[in-house]
Amino acid sequence: MSRFLNARYQPLQAYVPGEQPRDAGWVKLNTNESPYAPAEGVVRAAAEAAAGLNLYSDPTCALLRDALAERYGVKRENICAVNGSDEALNFAFMAFGGRGAVFPDITYGFYPVFCQLHGIPFREIPLKADFSIDPAEYFGVNGLVVIANPNAPTGMALPVAEIERILRGNPDGVVLVDEAYVDFGGESCMPLVEKYENLLVVRTFSKSRSLAGARLGFAVGQKALIDDLEKLRYSTNPYNINSMTLAAGRAALMQDDYYMENCAKIAATREATRDALTALGFDVLPSQGNFLFAAHGCMPGEAVNQALRKRRVLVRHFAKERIAGYNRITIGTPQQMRTLVEALRDIVSEGENP
Amino acid sequence: MSRFLNARYQPLQAYVPGEQPRDAGWVKLNTNESPYAPAEGVVRAAAEAAAGLNLYSDPTCALLRDALAERYGVKRENICAVNGSDEALNFAFMAFGGRGAVFPDITYGFYPVFCQLHGIPFREIPLKADFSIDPAEYFGVNGLVVIANPNAPTGMALPVAEIERILRGNPDGVVLVDEAYVDFGGESCMPLVEKYENLLVVRTFSKSRSLAGARLGFAVGQKALIDDLEKLRYSTNPYNINSMTLAAGRAALMQDDYYMENCAKIAATREATRDALTALGFDVLPSQGNFLFAAHGCMPGEAVNQALRKRRVLVRHFAKERIAGYNRITIGTPQQMRTLVEALRDIVSEGENP
Repeated sequence: MSRFLNARYQPLQAYVPGEQPRDAGWVKLNTNESPYAPAEGVVRAAAEAAAGLNLYSDPTCALLRDALAERYGVKRENICAVNGSDEALNFAFMAFGGRGAVFPDITYGFYPVFCQLHGIPFREIPLKADFSIDPAEYFGVNGLVVIANPNAPTGMALPVAEIERILRGNPDGVVLVDEAYVDFGGESCMPLVEKYENLLVVRTFSKSRSLAGARLGFAVGQKALIDDLEKLRYSTNPYNINSMTLAAGRAALMQDDYYMENCAKIAATREATRDALTALGFDVLPSQGNFLFAAHGCMPGEAVNQALRKRRVLVRHFAKERIAGYNRITIGTPQQMRTLVEALRDIVSEGENP
Repeated sequence: MSRFLNARYQPLQAYVPGEQPRDAGWVKLNTNESPYAPAEGVVRAAAEAAAGLNLYSDPTCALLRDALAERYGVKRENICAVNGSDEALNFAFMAFGGRGAVFPDITYGFYPVFCQLHGIPFREIPLKADFSIDPAEYFGVNGLVVIANPNAPTGMALPVAEIERILRGNPDGVVLVDEAYVDFGGESCMPLVEKYENLLVVRTFSKSRSLAGARLGFAVGQKALIDDLEKLRYSTNPYNINSMTLAAGRAALMQDDYYMENCAKIAATREATRDALTALGFDVLPSQGNFLFAAHGCMPGEAVNQALRKRRVLVRHFAKERIAGYNRITIGTPQQMRTLVEALRDIVSEGENP
């Protein structure tokens, strides 16, 4: 830290992203990426855009927003396109967190960082003992409510009808529904946008559309909410999305069947992996995401994590008391999951017969 | 604006970027892009990276920062890589604007927007009558000093020795030198980084390296300053740069001769264009950038701008009283500049003989 740093940021604790090893040879199941490559048309579109990089990208992101609008049955004015959904979350906390924010105690670890960054008071509501969310606890918040649905790292999802209760319970605050993982089995709130002026849905191309490395996300809401986000976007970084990613995103939407099939494959792999882990004695939460959250009664989560790492398998452990026994395991290819399960079989057996 | 918007952002006036027409047929000289395509290796590197977009980009930007460090004779720890230099500016205003900021009255129009966004009090120091900067007016600021060097939209540059006086005159505040245009003839402060703990240099790949559409910039400073920026980057959007752009940036550095030759070509075209405009009766400021700032005594700047637009030539006019007579004209190819000069010859002659 320099002696020049603004005092308000001195106590800030930055977000710690999952490890991104640069060397090969890892079974990488730690940051919820898709194991499937982008569709061929996507790579071609990005490469074509690269030839024109001397010109700025379109700050209005018009073509991409039109493609998204068509895909999701909304209008261009209902969409704010961003450099990864974290950027939409950041803008939303800035725009709508003025009277504070509320979210579960176990959820995406970036939410409290955004609050600290912007001086937003926040309250974490404990998940129930089974890690589920009780919608009634989010009524009358009178501030920003943030619900990841499906939630991370648990993978557990709320039906849309329950989200709708939260929306009705907070007529004077924005309810941000972070649907990063919705394509793997959850129910989307997108159809409610027309009905609720206080609903903001945030999505990403990183998981279900195999574009984590391209950085592309979007927020969907009524025009007034989107105008607020756009004002912040134009006051921060108007050319926030590069030309290659804009082209890749459009191309991805043209091949949506490919991606939705991948999502179905990943969901099937998830269920098979869940059965296998359960058979090994793991407690595995019911997940609608592209990951599983699993604990073994006989071993601390950190020990399992380190034992997997020794076998060149990366999964993610969170140093938080209530979930210290768990690891979050991204769903990879069936082959990768077989490697994981075999590694865990060894680890559990060694743990039981050291 | 929604009724949910945080009161602190309600009066905010967003930055207005230059027009980015999507239709062909314009001579586009309005946003200081390079008229020359990225080097071939750049397009190839970006395309290769596109194949692996399902995995996240490297949040540490290690390979790119190492290449930059080698190019500029610093260390990786002296470099913060960003999604276009606007992002570095935003982080720098946040980090070092705690006690206010000072910059010229005529300079990059985004500086006051960052101040409004973050609630930073700011003072604009008028350029002298000849649009030059008097370093002595920036001594003892006790806050963040921001100097674009060369300045925009004037194109006028300060020698490094003058910047050094500002650094010595502000031992307790950061001096941010925005070198977006330095490769076209200015003198860089980069060699001073080792000597001054309060110097932050911001650079972009958008202008001299033909990568406006890729979104890539970087800040250079002593480790403590860079650590402050990194803390904000990790609290905002740790994966701020996509994999294709990281690869494109590295490839560009490997072909630096190509770009530096382009810069020399652009500087030569600039001088020829300056002579031609002067011959048409324009007052043209001495520019070290890839643009000229020109006014014609007989016609308001807005009228010249509109007359050029009718002829499908885009240049940029700023609605600010002191510079209302001027237009900022990006230096394109010699052919584009001939088109511009011919159009202006017509316009001036019509203006004089309506």
